[in-house]
Amino acid sequence: MENSKRTVTCGELTAADVGKNVVLNGWVSRSRDLGGLCFISLRDRYGITQVVVGDKASDDVKKTAASLKSEYCIAVKGVVAARSEKDVNKDMATGAIEVEAEEIEIFTTSQELPFSIEEVRQKDGTVVLANEDLRLKYRYLDLRRAPMQHNIILRSQVAFAVREYLTSKGFLEIETPTFIKSTPEGARDYLVPSRVHPGKFYSLPQSPQLYKQLLMVSGFDKYFQIARCYRDEDARGDRQPEFTQIDMEMSFTNREEVLTTTEGMMQYVFKKTLNYELPAKFDRISWDDAFDYYGSDKPDLRFDLKMQDAAFMAGLSDFGAFKAGAANADKSIERHKRSGLKALVVKNVADKYSRKMIEALEDVAKRNHAKGLAWMKVNAEGTFEGGISKFYAGKESEICSKLGAEKNDLLLFVSDEKWQVACVALGAVRKQLGKDLNLYNPEDEFHFAWIIDFPYFAWNEEENHWETEHHMFTLPQKKYWDTLESDPGAVKGDLYDLVLNGYELASGSMRINDPALQQRIFKIVGYSNERAEKAFGFLVQAFKFGAPPHGGIAPGLDRLIMLMCHEDSIHEVIAFPKNNLAASPMDECPSAVDEQQLKDLHINCYDVEE
Amino acid sequence: MENSKRTVTCGELTAADVGKNVVLNGWVSRSRDLGGLCFISLRDRYGITQVVVGDKASDDVKKTAASLKSEYCIAVKGVVAARSEKDVNKDMATGAIEVEAEEIEIFTTSQELPFSIEEVRQKDGTVVLANEDLRLKYRYLDLRRAPMQHNIILRSQVAFAVREYLTSKGFLEIETPTFIKSTPEGARDYLVPSRVHPGKFYSLPQSPQLYKQLLMVSGFDKYFQIARCYRDEDARGDRQPEFTQIDMEMSFTNREEVLTTTEGMMQYVFKKTLNYELPAKFDRISWDDAFDYYGSDKPDLRFDLKMQDAAFMAGLSDFGAFKAGAANADKSIERHKRSGLKALVVKNVADKYSRKMIEALEDVAKRNHAKGLAWMKVNAEGTFEGGISKFYAGKESEICSKLGAEKNDLLLFVSDEKWQVACVALGAVRKQLGKDLNLYNPEDEFHFAWIIDFPYFAWNEEENHWETEHHMFTLPQKKYWDTLESDPGAVKGDLYDLVLNGYELASGSMRINDPALQQRIFKIVGYSNERAEKAFGFLVQAFKFGAPPHGGIAPGLDRLIMLMCHEDSIHEVIAFPKNNLAASPMDECPSAVDEQQLKDLHINCYDVEE
Repeated sequence: MENSKRTVTCGELTAADVGKNVVLNGWVSRSRDLGGLCFISLRDRYGITQVVVGDKASDDVKKTAASLKSEYCIAVKGVVAARSEKDVNKDMATGAIEVEAEEIEIFTTSQELPFSIEEVRQKDGTVVLANEDLRLKYRYLDLRRAPMQHNIILRSQVAFAVREYLTSKGFLEIETPTFIKSTPEGARDYLVPSRVHPGKFYSLPQSPQLYKQLLMVSGFDKYFQIARCYRDEDARGDRQPEFTQIDMEMSFTNREEVLTTTEGMMQYVFKKTLNYELPAKFDRISWDDAFDYYGSDKPDLRFDLKMQDAAFMAGLSDFGAFKAGAANADKSIERHKRSGLKALVVKNVADKYSRKMIEALEDVAKRNHAKGLAWMKVNAEGTFEGGISKFYAGKESEICSKLGAEKNDLLLFVSDEKWQVACVALGAVRKQLGKDLNLYNPEDEFHFAWIIDFPYFAWNEEENHWETEHHMFTLPQKKYWDTLESDPGAVKGDLYDLVLNGYELASGSMRINDPALQQRIFKIVGYSNERAEKAFGFLVQAFKFGAPPHGGIAPGLDRLIMLMCHEDSIHEVIAFPKNNLAASPMDECPSAVDEQQLKDLHINCYDVEE
Repeated sequence: MENSKRTVTCGELTAADVGKNVVLNGWVSRSRDLGGLCFISLRDRYGITQVVVGDKASDDVKKTAASLKSEYCIAVKGVVAARSEKDVNKDMATGAIEVEAEEIEIFTTSQELPFSIEEVRQKDGTVVLANEDLRLKYRYLDLRRAPMQHNIILRSQVAFAVREYLTSKGFLEIETPTFIKSTPEGARDYLVPSRVHPGKFYSLPQSPQLYKQLLMVSGFDKYFQIARCYRDEDARGDRQPEFTQIDMEMSFTNREEVLTTTEGMMQYVFKKTLNYELPAKFDRISWDDAFDYYGSDKPDLRFDLKMQDAAFMAGLSDFGAFKAGAANADKSIERHKRSGLKALVVKNVADKYSRKMIEALEDVAKRNHAKGLAWMKVNAEGTFEGGISKFYAGKESEICSKLGAEKNDLLLFVSDEKWQVACVALGAVRKQLGKDLNLYNPEDEFHFAWIIDFPYFAWNEEENHWETEHHMFTLPQKKYWDTLESDPGAVKGDLYDLVLNGYELASGSMRINDPALQQRIFKIVGYSNERAEKAFGFLVQAFKFGAPPHGGIAPGLDRLIMLMCHEDSIHEVIAFPKNNLAASPMDECPSAVDEQQLKDLHINCYDVEE
């Protein structure tokens, strides 16, 4: 072909283009030879166009057309023609036309494929994919599949929308180093041996945390970076050796401003990329309430179903298992003034729930560390039935009134002397019910919420000392500054998590900018000056030169896109992910390297796999 | 202070704001106590505002003001007042007003600084900075300096403008992995030991080359990524262990489209960020011409001064040194039909150039491998004088007419039997003259050009075989496909470099998409199938499934910003660079790590520095 470069893409021709001479480039998605008449579905990133090889084509062109196989990469020169009315395909952007081929050039042929690029739907509507290692080995083909194209394109659009929004708000994108110092806190750091400095290592950042705080000390005021981060954890569905976060930090700010900026960003991104309207404000739920109502600090709020306190029930019978939960035996309960006897009222399902189904829920509770799951039903007569009903005969009206239970409701209970254990276990049952009963509000495809007022310190039972729940630069809430040392357990941090549909999407905090306050925190968690110096010396040093009040947040991009795409794994939204062994079946990475390379780096390996 | 969060920045108040109550946050840039009246220059990223502590201030506030030192981080609450006419500072955006302080809160104090944040200009106008390691140790303070703020902010603006332009043209930003396979070609790869796979390593990418080509195989059509890359070279002023490139790749394209897309991007970026109009088209100069005229494949075109072929002069006298250069002894000369006797005519400077100054130029030529620098002057009478003039007495009119020389011109010559050696040496003299005589066209602050038609292969004299000048996926120009094997030295590649002001800014090429052609290249450079398989197996494999015609380019972001900022080193445009030993004096990275960390990675170190 004289000039085989496309003049149009495979996604743009419509009835308005009929009669035009065009050149298309793309891949053969399907090719059907009907004896003298050949139909080719030609695909590129932008769509599919039907090519017809018929009367206008020379014998040579017909011969070429007949030789085409799936995924050949070709150019087609031809004329746009209207399809006959019965052949118009309204589900296709280009469904009104076809291109009558005059010339065909095969750029490159294709071997037989290891799996199909087209979706093969089963009778039940599901799509069965090749196993993941095969998909990853031929990732370049897997990425030709329409859902992967969608996910990767959406990811690109989201990243750009994030940048548009933040740039419009005065944020600067500043690149921070990925060769940083390994800290003694750096379990799970990836290390890079230095050639120039034998025995020394760079570390890859788990986040740009220290550097973005230094940028605040430098006065850049509003920073962001879509930053690659690294953590050497065993890979799971939502963990990768390298991951990407939307890293943000602001100076002269407060929690409210960080939260509203993040809300504004998400609103802009969802509107621009999915045309989805998020609410003007996201819910703000205290950490205490999140556990108390939903049994999780990342509750799925697409359905309501709140847990309730059922401590009053302990006094209504001599059912032993409820006594401990109601007894406020745990100091954490005392602090929260909430009991370890939690109830769920599941509306109007009592007649549907068999003993076996309830046992399945009990399994969920037990896997989440409950001793058991107590239950009873409100039957059609308004009396209790099954499970623990015999202990509460005659107390129906008090219990139903207090818990808001009605006929045909299923009542579920977990009791534990520890408030948080009871909450988490029954919260897991709540989550399971959401799935089983499909309780999700269809209007509420994406439900964001803020979890705020986190405990600042946690008691490390094994090592017998306080440690910080988040990192050590988090600002304790001001009202606790006088009692940091005297009552660490009561201190709340200026911390906030952003959750979406039951996933933690971001964690952030206001930071300490006062060196004296920072020293107090180091002391409470048992950090010697020396250890603090070794770990964070340069940040501590920087804060001696006038550090502004500042705070930030870092939404995870991989997980955000995963949720926006309704995928279950971040593997589906990363172009070239590693598998669950942190390896790439495509390029066989990691791999052994030459002796000389190791020698240059002054290192030896041992325990080497054969 | 009740609410110390700023209501305005330090860069925005004007006469229109007089009378307003405001809160400012920032750093004390200067503070002058004139006894009862105190002036504070308060600085943030956006500007400087003058704060006056006078009558309206309480004694407490006066006392606080008097205690302020440089770089204290503070909040000021006050009222905007007009400055008296004589105090208006027209050089300052906020120079029409001052803020009369009513309250001051010190957020944080500052220790004495290791160096001044304000520019300290010498009498000759130069600014003397602290030595680089001190600047890097306190980088967070160095970044407070106005030039560093400017550079980092411009960098952020340029990166965003790049993304705007490419996104508007349908490019997708796709993240490629930074944990990739180390190839046998990977001298200078940084390696990351795997914890999960003992004895195996990830490699950090020197560029996303293979992955962006795979994305073309996947059909993403137009890819870009502002990508972090890694190369373990000894650091110099313009080299860093990690650097950033604007990585681009396009499918179904040709050289022209890659070039015009890149031109469009640069035009957009320069206009948007510097309000600088680049020409609609950049010069396109063949590699042969670039050496022949400018002695470099990255010529500085801000001044013209072309070198000329002076082979004709060898026949005009018996001056021996010119014979070899004119003799076309070198096979490369034969190919280029150009001689190794090169001349520069430097206009109207003969009377200014002493013998000593010419000797300095000869040093430049010799450092660039010339045997010497021949010269003569055209004097006021139009005859030759000095240097080699005695060999050419009486030939003035022929020589001057052919070289375009006139009275008071200085003629410089390098002769070498190798054309390229002569070009490079005299080209270095040309560059030096540009600086010495300030020949730069003031209208031409940024002069881009394309260097095209590169030789595809180079003969490796040491190892006695052909190798590719660029990488092995570069497409040879089509007209040479039949003679690849028979005359490799003549083959030109579909290669292009973008140069700016004498720096190579980008390198790119059209790629091979035909597996058979790729095999021929591997064979010519002596790659066994095995070696090619081991090095690039997955790319070669991918190309068996219908690879589209594609090509790309990758402008270096660090160097682009360096040139846009008129800086000499990329250190000045990177927030946290490494020094010339690839180390960071701030965080003392690289550093020794815990024994346990090495154990987890199954490695030992030796040759360890104490």
